[in-house]
Amino acid sequence: MEIYKFAQEVISDAGAFIRQRMTEDFNIDSKLNPNDLVTDVDKETERFLFEKIEERYPDHRILGEEGQGADIEDTDGVLWIIDPIDGTLNFVHQLENFAVSIGIYIDGKPYAGLILDVMKDDLYHAAYEQGAYKNDRPLHDIEASSLKSSLISTNANWLVRDGINTPFIQIVKDARSVRSLGSAALEFVNVARGTSSAALFYRLHPWDFAGGVILLNEVGGITTTLLGDGLRLLNTNSIIAANKTIHAEIIEYFKADEAFIRNHKKFHKL
Amino acid sequence: MEIYKFAQEVISDAGAFIRQRMTEDFNIDSKLNPNDLVTDVDKETERFLFEKIEERYPDHRILGEEGQGADIEDTDGVLWIIDPIDGTLNFVHQLENFAVSIGIYIDGKPYAGLILDVMKDDLYHAAYEQGAYKNDRPLHDIEASSLKSSLISTNANWLVRDGINTPFIQIVKDARSVRSLGSAALEFVNVARGTSSAALFYRLHPWDFAGGVILLNEVGGITTTLLGDGLRLLNTNSIIAANKTIHAEIIEYFKADEAFIRNHKKFHKL
Repeated sequence: MEIYKFAQEVISDAGAFIRQRMTEDFNIDSKLNPNDLVTDVDKETERFLFEKIEERYPDHRILGEEGQGADIEDTDGVLWIIDPIDGTLNFVHQLENFAVSIGIYIDGKPYAGLILDVMKDDLYHAAYEQGAYKNDRPLHDIEASSLKSSLISTNANWLVRDGINTPFIQIVKDARSVRSLGSAALEFVNVARGTSSAALFYRLHPWDFAGGVILLNEVGGITTTLLGDGLRLLNTNSIIAANKTIHAEIIEYFKADEAFIRNHKKFHKL
Repeated sequence: MEIYKFAQEVISDAGAFIRQRMTEDFNIDSKLNPNDLVTDVDKETERFLFEKIEERYPDHRILGEEGQGADIEDTDGVLWIIDPIDGTLNFVHQLENFAVSIGIYIDGKPYAGLILDVMKDDLYHAAYEQGAYKNDRPLHDIEASSLKSSLISTNANWLVRDGINTPFIQIVKDARSVRSLGSAALEFVNVARGTSSAALFYRLHPWDFAGGVILLNEVGGITTTLLGDGLRLLNTNSIIAANKTIHAEIIEYFKADEAFIRNHKKFHKL
């Protein structure tokens, strides 16, 4: 449990680093897509985490959103998968509702997941088969629910994207209501807290989900692709994170849609 | 300003009442639509506000979501328009992200708007032409922004509703990103704080918008129907609440869509 304790310290330190850094100016650039922003703070926070982890554990490997470990092709040994700022658009526009996310895997097996809601300074964390916590308080197992009596979360992007949107649209029509927060990591947290029953994503990168899947598993939730398959840890995946009852209900919408299956396969190079 | 001061007290008291009431059990019913919930707490909070206001100002009139003043057909005198819990689904499922909203109008003219984020105990308030505040701190004028570089908020319901969704879909495609919080009053607050550039609603009742429009006006924002027309205070309206630049850009999407105009007219009985 030494690595887990250290991870709790380093993610809290990263949060303090970000909050301090926000008191100064920072530059904002866009990546390939004009709406995919990256700031100096994303890059500096990844470097901060990299240096702290490498100093303590020189033989661990680190995969980060901002380019760290881009050459990693296998899951041997201790692998840290980190997102220095998950929800960069919220960071830029709202100065809240963003997170640091860390997933630690040992030889490809889940070891610990940690998500820090930076502005609230709330740390959600779990070690595999040891239960999940919000700060020092245990999180309860989440409750079963049906789609028609649930709040779920997804992004409007998927509702307006031809070729894949048919099942998303029907799910929205059948759900009680839909929310969208704009941080995948915090949407995992909301499912783990029970304030959302399911979170649906058409594409997440490893750093978007690596921490969240371990956290959610510890409160009885499940995470698979939208078609119900297991996740590939080093690739993009579509994702549903949910309680097991609504999970079984929702994946049927996707499995029944041939256009979705075809486009999903192509998009994720399955 | 005596009424304004009293309104600040009574809305804060209503928040304390709700937070206390949440420590006990409460019943949940549905209204006409199975997803339109109402709880004992909504009803008791409306009664709490009604009794306090009536005791102090017996000649004022009160229109509330839960049935108070349902016979009011004109805007003469001092009219309080109140939503005891705006975001009831969030109240039930999340125990956060809901608000008390109060709009006060004198002979149909805006006098004061107040929105309390109940769980954060943050009071957003404004008297007409006197500026807006978060608790004791003034809110700044909001900044101009274009759709392509903005976060906006709307509900997924409108994206999946045939006959009106074409302009909503194109707006989502052209926006930087979309969020959905599930409380109209708090979405007004987010526009007034600058954490969202525009909030779009196909249907709001008077109690959903009466406080928010006054608040937003005090920070340089604008509120109209989605077609750019003035609001009818005692009716349902479609609404865009936004900075003036993005407002002008967004209403063109709706004004260019004949099916939307036709269905909007019919739906709101214009």
